Amino acid sequence: MRPSGRAPDEMRSLSLLRGFSKHAEGSCLVKFGDTHVLCTASLETRAPHWLRDTGKGWVTAEYGMLPRSTHSRMDREAARGKQSGRTQEIQRLIGRSLRAIMELEGLGERQIRIDCDVLQADGGTRTAAISGGFVALVDCLRYMRDAGLIETLPIREPVAAVSCGLYKGNPVLDLDYDEDSAAETDANFVLTASGGIVEIQGTAEEAPFSEEQFLRLMRLARIGCDRIISEQKRVLGLK
Amino acid sequence: MRPSGRAPDEMRSLSLLRGFSKHAEGSCLVKFGDTHVLCTASLETRAPHWLRDTGKGWVTAEYGMLPRSTHSRMDREAARGKQSGRTQEIQRLIGRSLRAIMELEGLGERQIRIDCDVLQADGGTRTAAISGGFVALVDCLRYMRDAGLIETLPIREPVAAVSCGLYKGNPVLDLDYDEDSAAETDANFVLTASGGIVEIQGTAEEAPFSEEQFLRLMRLARIGCDRIISEQKRVLGLK
Amino acid sequence: MRPSGRAPDEMRSLSLLRGFSKHAEGSCLVKFGDTHVLCTASLETRAPHWLRDTGKGWVTAEYGMLPRSTHSRMDREAARGKQSGRTQEIQRLIGRSLRAIMELEGLGERQIRIDCDVLQADGGTRTAAISGGFVALVDCLRYMRDAGLIETLPIREPVAAVSCGLYKGNPVLDLDYDEDSAAETDANFVLTASGGIVEIQGTAEEAPFSEEQFLRLMRLARIGCDRIISEQKRVLGLK
Amino acid sequence: MRPSGRAPDEMRSLSLLRGFSKHAEGSCLVKFGDTHVLCTASLETRAPHWLRDTGKGWVTAEYGMLPRSTHSRMDREAARGKQSGRTQEIQRLIGRSLRAIMELEGLGERQIRIDCDVLQADGGTRTAAISGGFVALVDCLRYMRDAGLIETLPIREPVAAVSCGLYKGNPVLDLDYDEDSAAETDANFVLTASGGIVEIQGTAEEAPFSEEQFLRLMRLARIGCDRIISEQKRVLGLK
Amino acid sequence: MRPSGRAPDEMRSLSLLRGFSKHAEGSCLVKFGDTHVLCTASLETRAPHWLRDTGKGWVTAEYGMLPRSTHSRMDREAARGKQSGRTQEIQRLIGRSLRAIMELEGLGERQIRIDCDVLQADGGTRTAAISGGFVALVDCLRYMRDAGLIETLPIREPVAAVSCGLYKGNPVLDLDYDEDSAAETDANFVLTASGGIVEIQGTAEEAPFSEEQFLRLMRLARIGCDRIISEQKRVLGLK
Amino acid sequence: MRPSGRAPDEMRSLSLLRGFSKHAEGSCLVKFGDTHVLCTASLETRAPHWLRDTGKGWVTAEYGMLPRSTHSRMDREAARGKQSGRTQEIQRLIGRSLRAIMELEGLGERQIRIDCDVLQADGGTRTAAISGGFVALVDCLRYMRDAGLIETLPIREPVAAVSCGLYKGNPVLDLDYDEDSAAETDANFVLTASGGIVEIQGTAEEAPFSEEQFLRLMRLARIGCDRIISEQKRVLGLK
Repeated sequence: MRPSGRAPDEMRSLSLLRGFSKHAEGSCLVKFGDTHVLCTASLETRAPHWLRDTGKGWVTAEYGMLPRSTHSRMDREAARGKQSGRTQEIQRLIGRSLRAIMELEGLGERQIRIDCDVLQADGGTRTAAISGGFVALVDCLRYMRDAGLIETLPIREPVAAVSCGLYKGNPVLDLDYDEDSAAETDANFVLTASGGIVEIQGTAEEAPFSEEQFLRLMRLARIGCDRIISEQKRVLGLK
Repeated sequence: MRPSGRAPDEMRSLSLLRGFSKHAEGSCLVKFGDTHVLCTASLETRAPHWLRDTGKGWVTAEYGMLPRSTHSRMDREAARGKQSGRTQEIQRLIGRSLRAIMELEGLGERQIRIDCDVLQADGGTRTAAISGGFVALVDCLRYMRDAGLIETLPIREPVAAVSCGLYKGNPVLDLDYDEDSAAETDANFVLTASGGIVEIQGTAEEAPFSEEQFLRLMRLARIGCDRIISEQKRVLGLK
Repeated sequence: MRPSGRAPDEMRSLSLLRGFSKHAEGSCLVKFGDTHVLCTASLETRAPHWLRDTGKGWVTAEYGMLPRSTHSRMDREAARGKQSGRTQEIQRLIGRSLRAIMELEGLGERQIRIDCDVLQADGGTRTAAISGGFVALVDCLRYMRDAGLIETLPIREPVAAVSCGLYKGNPVLDLDYDEDSAAETDANFVLTASGGIVEIQGTAEEAPFSEEQFLRLMRLARIGCDRIISEQKRVLGLK
Repeated sequence: MRPSGRAPDEMRSLSLLRGFSKHAEGSCLVKFGDTHVLCTASLETRAPHWLRDTGKGWVTAEYGMLPRSTHSRMDREAARGKQSGRTQEIQRLIGRSLRAIMELEGLGERQIRIDCDVLQADGGTRTAAISGGFVALVDCLRYMRDAGLIETLPIREPVAAVSCGLYKGNPVLDLDYDEDSAAETDANFVLTASGGIVEIQGTAEEAPFSEEQFLRLMRLARIGCDRIISEQKRVLGLK
Repeated sequence: MRPSGRAPDEMRSLSLLRGFSKHAEGSCLVKFGDTHVLCTASLETRAPHWLRDTGKGWVTAEYGMLPRSTHSRMDREAARGKQSGRTQEIQRLIGRSLRAIMELEGLGERQIRIDCDVLQADGGTRTAAISGGFVALVDCLRYMRDAGLIETLPIREPVAAVSCGLYKGNPVLDLDYDEDSAAETDANFVLTASGGIVEIQGTAEEAPFSEEQFLRLMRLARIGCDRIISEQKRVLGLK
Repeated sequence: MRPSGRAPDEMRSLSLLRGFSKHAEGSCLVKFGDTHVLCTASLETRAPHWLRDTGKGWVTAEYGMLPRSTHSRMDREAARGKQSGRTQEIQRLIGRSLRAIMELEGLGERQIRIDCDVLQADGGTRTAAISGGFVALVDCLRYMRDAGLIETLPIREPVAAVSCGLYKGNPVLDLDYDEDSAAETDANFVLTASGGIVEIQGTAEEAPFSEEQFLRLMRLARIGCDRIISEQKRVLGLK
């Protein structure tokens, strides 16, 4: 029995709210239950220097948590003077995941920066950030198309992410904080609409897990990502 | 004529939403028009070391802006590795302003930390943060009272803040970004319900201003703070 | 009765020593009683990048305290690896105050950097720094004129600063450390020769203060700044 | 055909040299072909503060590359003043992987710190570091047993790591730099002697990959880790 | 011929002004010609942690240059966020030099911190700092004796420092900036009253120098240090 | 009697292993007994900006210790976020020493960066680094000559370094850690093949030393450097 009473393959309530931010070229407030992440997409007119004269653009991401987004207050990273290893790991993951479904040549020598700021945390912030970041990215690309900067959206297909884990020995989908902190194994999957795998991260928190267990988690992840992608398409009006 | 069409002594629409954050002991999403600041109050069981054995507590504040809360994206302070001078100046102001209406002896040797994070900026973020921070602070104190940590709320009276300025030569109340960036003089006032002055900061952006002009700004500030304090009392159910 | 025996509207002994530094284009050792601040003005051949191609120049300031300028030794900011919020707040204030009386177009695309280093502190270091910084600035501009870089000094009028406060309930002028650390209210005023206000910062250290009290502080500040400006004119040979 | 002429399931020459360092409680110079990593295990008499009074110990890791371990010289992280996101990600992975096969209760309230410093890099440094770190760890535990600090080695089973990837569409084992920089998909596996999975990290560098491809990589990883674990047992004299 | 017209073994005018600072337990403004360094000695009630329970104390030093102490303005180290290698090298030298003539057991478990801040630089700032730091140190020790903290001054003998160099092939004493920047060889000597050597640093700026040349520099240094020590004794009233 | 049983003028076993690193343009693993330092020389196509348009090149050095190169583990400088004063002092010394025997005009506007990383420390790491750094530098210059970048090696003569000290009152050559930590005086000498002095650093650890003692140390240093230079010539095939 899960603490929330959910079925093993049941996600939390899901919400993708476009246009939350007045200033950004694209934005999305994503909610996976009580996990709320504000994703904004900012268009920058220059690509990173290593892409100069390649005709290609770049998508990168930054991640942060408000100090009291968590149960106990965390130190503010700006005040401590550096980002934690966890923060850097997550923002690298978000950036890689979104680049994996982009045609970077189609962007021109520009950069889109996705900021994912956790307003409230209850497990799964990185997967929510990827899922909501995709929506912000699409809206930013539409802004660019409307401004005549590009002709077509240089996106191959939607991408989404979800966490799965072994909780009291059972595979469950979309862990909340209570489950996450007690799970024996925690895995994040980034999957595309067409069934491709973009990223897999599986970690044994206590004891090693088996290949069979891992495959059951992957099957749950497929269910979850399909559900998220379906919602992404709905709010974005994609076929 | 103001860009927004407001009368000189007219504030923007004002909203103080309590309990925005699930985890914090007190929280308030404050909106001064399109300026949105999330204020949380976190109770910490230890006072700063310099208060050890004094029986007194402390209230402090931290301030941050989401990178894309502004029209053009700002660098993330956590990524740059330090807080700007402006950020530090503002968080020191918020802390001083809230301490000025507290009885710190009544807090015991504890600290309340007020985090003010700007989700969207359109001028006046520091004054919104003080005004909303007061609401979060009161809710945190009520939490402490309900938990039996204190008997009465160690607060003397409400406090609020508002900006005024000379825009095209005319004194106006509660500047938005369009006015703020064009104002000749910009002043922030932190005032209490009983009419006391907690903090005044007046700055000539271009040419020096006169004492008479300054007094007209102070009169507008009184109108604005009375309006905010009235709303603070309403949402908090204070007489 | 003030600890120093001064009358309420009596400043400390004031000294503005030009040319203290052999290398700087302008310099002034300013003494407000036992508060001694060395101000130097350094001409830099390039303006900040955001002024490129505007024809305008810039004046900026940096502030520091020698570690043992104070009663108890302070940590050296260079060793700690960052400037405190107080330091940044003060150097921003000094820069704004001096720019307010400049015609920045008349400087050409150059920058003058005012370094204010406190050799000995006894209250009022920021106001001494502004008052002495003005003298160093004028000498630097004269150096530029003598070098044929500019034709006339791009300065509108002298500027000076002084602190006032409520000490044991009475308004007093030019607080020394003993008064400053016990004052109920502390205010800094930056005023010009013609009576204009450049900056006002008033802070209630304990209880809020009234508008009437504030106006009495402003009147004392006028007396103090007139006295400083008179001395600035004398040492600079200005009419 | 692989650039090195190896068969798809063929590892590079493998060497685990114990006792490379005179001072450390345990050490191992591990070579995966031209990738050379020096792993040392340092016993610290205190566990991290969050384990105080739990009776448990901790294993943590730090990772670094000598500036000229790589083809083009990299900036020295100590000179730049911070560790990169990649460095932090890798050292977190090494620490988690080694803790997963430990009985931390059996360590007492002590910490073992594994330093993995890359003397020469040719792909797969993190997997070499985990594989060699295990050897250093065991020698450190034996040192502790010989010193009477513990009675038995608190280790459940050996652990090793290897990278696999899709190179020109084919799954290959133990990528060197030439393959790594051209691979479509790159995956790191941390596996135990008994067949358990400790960590999986799979990343699509260009296009998403399929579940079937992923399973083929996992099968190669099993071959590679078995080979490494067999060598670990040999040099350590484990059954 | 030296740029200043001095004889090869002639020092610049020398001045040691005690009690320059109102707050410090000991202080000395030292002038070697146009090189002016303010040295303060601050008594701290605790020794560094590694001396706990040894009964010994410590003397340490910090060094800084005001940004415009030099001909061209230098960046402020506090603003850059770190001390340069040169600064650290010099402050380590000052600390070692002063400790070499102390009986650290006689200090008790306390620390004296010598701050050496260069107000104006014209070559030889580190040697001036050591020479003036000794005076500040003695005055601090006298303060301690008068306060009953120690019975006798735990100092063995005076110490002083001076630079020598090869300028246009000739050995000269006490280099000023013009000589220093053109010297082929630059050497700093820290010597004691009784003829002992505390520290020698000799550096070939262009071509290596010979042993004979080095010995001639050492002879000049003896002349210079004797002169400085004689002045130290005079101002301190030591026999 | 020395702890190692060596004669006073006897060096430790000496080894200079060229080509230790696969990637670097020049490299040398230098061993002074149990002190092992890996020196690499990296060719950079640009000289520092202050040499632009001078036709001259530059040689610089960086130094680091692996955290467990020492008896007790040291903090990793990259993790602490800054290099210690000692590290900076040493890398400045290495750079100066190697530049002193170079014709920098003969390098063209390029930079060679010497990285000296201590794999194992047992006293004398800086002198080993200079001695091995010379070998790496020569191999880098030969690489440049073979690549047609320069015609002749812009080196005047070999340079080497060794430490000497007073151990239990006796002058000894090439101190190991046991001697170094107990020596009354410690001196480092950087000498050239032709008998020139490049750098001298002598420090009294406890009591000042005499000129005669210092000259005896210098004589030992000459013996040691001659021995090292002879080995440098042998491994490099220099006449």
